Amino acid sequence: MSEHEFIDWLKQRLTTHSANHRLALGPGDDAALAHANGQILLAADMIMDKVHFDLSRDSPELAGRKALAVNLSDIAAMAGRPDSALVSLALPRSRGSALGQGVMQGILQLAEQYDVAIAGGDTNSWEGPLAIAVSVTGTPHPLGSVTRSGARVGDLVLVTGELGGSIQGRHLSFAPRIREAELLHHRYRLSAMLDLSDGLATDLRHILKASHVGARLDKTAIPVSAIAKQSDDPLSAALQDGEDFELCFTASPDAAATMLREQPLAPALLITKIGVICEDPELRWNDGSTIALGGYRHQFG
Amino acid sequence: MSEHEFIDWLKQRLTTHSANHRLALGPGDDAALAHANGQILLAADMIMDKVHFDLSRDSPELAGRKALAVNLSDIAAMAGRPDSALVSLALPRSRGSALGQGVMQGILQLAEQYDVAIAGGDTNSWEGPLAIAVSVTGTPHPLGSVTRSGARVGDLVLVTGELGGSIQGRHLSFAPRIREAELLHHRYRLSAMLDLSDGLATDLRHILKASHVGARLDKTAIPVSAIAKQSDDPLSAALQDGEDFELCFTASPDAAATMLREQPLAPALLITKIGVICEDPELRWNDGSTIALGGYRHQFG
Repeated sequence: MSEHEFIDWLKQRLTTHSANHRLALGPGDDAALAHANGQILLAADMIMDKVHFDLSRDSPELAGRKALAVNLSDIAAMAGRPDSALVSLALPRSRGSALGQGVMQGILQLAEQYDVAIAGGDTNSWEGPLAIAVSVTGTPHPLGSVTRSGARVGDLVLVTGELGGSIQGRHLSFAPRIREAELLHHRYRLSAMLDLSDGLATDLRHILKASHVGARLDKTAIPVSAIAKQSDDPLSAALQDGEDFELCFTASPDAAATMLREQPLAPALLITKIGVICEDPELRWNDGSTIALGGYRHQFG
Repeated sequence: MSEHEFIDWLKQRLTTHSANHRLALGPGDDAALAHANGQILLAADMIMDKVHFDLSRDSPELAGRKALAVNLSDIAAMAGRPDSALVSLALPRSRGSALGQGVMQGILQLAEQYDVAIAGGDTNSWEGPLAIAVSVTGTPHPLGSVTRSGARVGDLVLVTGELGGSIQGRHLSFAPRIREAELLHHRYRLSAMLDLSDGLATDLRHILKASHVGARLDKTAIPVSAIAKQSDDPLSAALQDGEDFELCFTASPDAAATMLREQPLAPALLITKIGVICEDPELRWNDGSTIALGGYRHQFG
């Protein structure tokens, strides 16, 4: 497939994909027109070969899927609903068109699954590796967006799912928690939230810093994934591995108690209480010891 | 400057830059919140080292400036007004932070000049070259957006400024024609428009195809830039050089006549009539000969 054929294929796919009906003016002009009412959520994430995926073992479809999924996860982290995405590709000249087609197929499949319109973008060839830049728009939750700055002393800290070891494959195939975040905020009013991309120990600190609070976590409560349990240090894997893309959030004690009793996402997904927000602006275990910062362990290559 | 220091610097700059007031929620959370009313324009363009700029001679500031400018030019091409931008950077690991800072300075300076809020984005280091992915949102013109599909038989074809030779520097320093496009549509109602990125001969064909029409151009009327006049083939340079980022548009004969008489952008910028839209779906000279497609001549490296 030549570059010209790829562009034609892409135009055809973009103008006929099922979520395209959501746009006032679809791709193909200098800009697209989307509907918006009052406020709009905006986020962008770029993923790159040998950093966030590795084409020597991962398919272009999964790389494309991930590029959109991490962006949808940002909208989920605000309890918003994604509406449209823009996609810019830097394609290695040697295998550009086939690669581009695989990437776009992965993106379009996920976009259709979540009814997200691909509003346009840009494709270029170069001598560098594959980079996929996606930006998304979304509609805020009717009850307001859940930022990182709303955690209050006494709120409980909770997470969805199980943490750690996503490098074994989940980082490519995870489901962005759009509907889950929307439902949780609708039913229980969350006070702060983010999606776990750099590991719980790093990401939770973003909430603490933005909210000017600290937290005490219960070491025995951290939901360690089955894969992380097989590692040398399961707890560190659960705290420090990146790219879980689960939700970490806070809620008032009453709301959290109801949520934990109702488990509204079960059996597919469990919510776990892992700690409590406190005044002392540190992230500590219950026994007062500091939790290591760790950091993002999933650099490839 | 370490990567950590760069991220801190960037957070500081993004939360204090002068256009930030336009956002309901600025950068630093999982997503930003922008105001939107009814419809929103969306566009994205990624530019890359050795393709759209060359760091061996161009400064990171100019590369960053261009990355935003080409996106603003897309909004101008719809006669819209840009509101916010998202920026994702792929930074070469060897000189990532200093490079990132230069790029962001170039972006922020232009953003402040056009009152465009930088709503967020993403920075990553890798072994590849510099890539800068920008996406923009904009507010459509109150009279409606000017697409590529509105040209009618009998409309005149016009361009702003002079064409060709932008490789000599203008491709990095051009001013996106935001206010110009807005004013022209407001006063004269344009029927179709785009910005010239791949050269007049290529880009005008996008209008013709989308509008299901053709055009006859007057060879002697093409406004050839002073730099293009110094080339071996000035007319081909004006028709086929990419990255002029001038406006090419169509308007009814009456509107065009008034516009040409009034020259509302003079003396800074002249509007030139270069031809007329006709039924025969080809791009020809007045004598009936076909205009060569040419294509984008500005591939670096």
